[in-house]
Amino acid sequence: MTVYKLTVQYDGTRYHGFQRQPNLLTIQGTIEKALAIMTKGQPVNLVAAGRTDAGVHALGQVISFAYPGNIPADKMVKALNSLMPRDILFVGGVIAVPDFNARFDALGKIYEYRVALGRYTNPFLRLYTGHYPFALDLSKIQTALLDVIGTHNFASFEASGGVIRNKVRTIYTADLDTTNYPQEIKFIFHGDGFLYNMVRIMVATLLEIGSGRRDVHDFLRLYQVQDRQQARLTAPASGLYLKKVFYPSSNID
Amino acid sequence: MTVYKLTVQYDGTRYHGFQRQPNLLTIQGTIEKALAIMTKGQPVNLVAAGRTDAGVHALGQVISFAYPGNIPADKMVKALNSLMPRDILFVGGVIAVPDFNARFDALGKIYEYRVALGRYTNPFLRLYTGHYPFALDLSKIQTALLDVIGTHNFASFEASGGVIRNKVRTIYTADLDTTNYPQEIKFIFHGDGFLYNMVRIMVATLLEIGSGRRDVHDFLRLYQVQDRQQARLTAPASGLYLKKVFYPSSNID
Repeated sequence: MTVYKLTVQYDGTRYHGFQRQPNLLTIQGTIEKALAIMTKGQPVNLVAAGRTDAGVHALGQVISFAYPGNIPADKMVKALNSLMPRDILFVGGVIAVPDFNARFDALGKIYEYRVALGRYTNPFLRLYTGHYPFALDLSKIQTALLDVIGTHNFASFEASGGVIRNKVRTIYTADLDTTNYPQEIKFIFHGDGFLYNMVRIMVATLLEIGSGRRDVHDFLRLYQVQDRQQARLTAPASGLYLKKVFYPSSNID
Repeated sequence: MTVYKLTVQYDGTRYHGFQRQPNLLTIQGTIEKALAIMTKGQPVNLVAAGRTDAGVHALGQVISFAYPGNIPADKMVKALNSLMPRDILFVGGVIAVPDFNARFDALGKIYEYRVALGRYTNPFLRLYTGHYPFALDLSKIQTALLDVIGTHNFASFEASGGVIRNKVRTIYTADLDTTNYPQEIKFIFHGDGFLYNMVRIMVATLLEIGSGRRDVHDFLRLYQVQDRQQARLTAPASGLYLKKVFYPSSNID
């Protein structure tokens, strides 16, 4: 058996999320089906760094799996790409140490969230951005992002369905990219981990702060109350991208 | 009755082209259904400058129709947008002179064609570009584009299904945008009119010239032979955009 660590991009629009589900089109199911073709039927179970939801995209998702055989990593990438639909693309890979696990070995992740602005949704961006029609005070968002950085209890920012007891996470950086403003803004979060729907709930809260619907320092209150009902809104899946996953360098041969 | 001239953008991915067809989702059918809601059932027939094919996009399609009522143009735009799905967006409009016809009054059009390069299709661009995996000599394409400009018989560049006898068209400008090279190139054609599939056949021919599969001046031969079989390939619909339509200014109030 050889353990592979592969990086994959996908347009999540057509999929019912990453995780395998019976009778539903998922990223995991699509990749595992291709691996089963390569092994002539022997099932291969893969693990992903982040189990993205329906409609969420990936620019640098990382998966790992043990494969019965020893193909060079670049050949594995090529073979999988030849079996993928056009909305999934493997962009790199290495052979990892035998106990490598893409989920449990991850040290941190970067998520991006794109928000299209203006009154109407751009027809060409509707599947690749969230949309916010109200005027924003970007300086308020910048101020609120400083409250996001650091180690906090993010219980207010977790959707029901999360299964992890410990709600404390550390956000290393929380940035706003205004390159395409006023057409679009982009949030970039680098953290050691993220609760279920955490980025999408934080983005919805940040947009409410930017439009004056919430106090600039409402994150500090939300850390205290630890109540999902207080954060309320969730930004749509279409704007969210898993950008990058970090690992200790010793995991890779 | 009031005649409106409206500009509309759409992502053509979901649609069986512009033109109304029984039991199929089309742009024309979607807009006419909205107009029938506004008139409480009275049918409104619209005319478009260019009847784009399935999967072809528009950044500046122009339509015209006679409407039983006299709503200000900006209100008409707003009312239609409130009834449109998220992949169709009206971006402007005016009340036109009573005999205005978006198709027959058009003096010319600009079409753009986006080609993604590199070995694999980018998952996020697959619906919005064509794709060409082979190395290109851009100077050969630039040279060939000079042969496109001018008045020529484009019979070799018309797909079967075209109904217009006269195959002579004038191309005013034919440009190559290399801003995003080597990820992508974009062709921009401004002409007085275009035969059925003409841009997509020209683009496929230009790419064959760029990769050395055809002589640089093969367009001159193709104008002579007037034989569709000689041009052969058609670039995919996903890369094509109707960008702009030109009218004599007197058509508009």
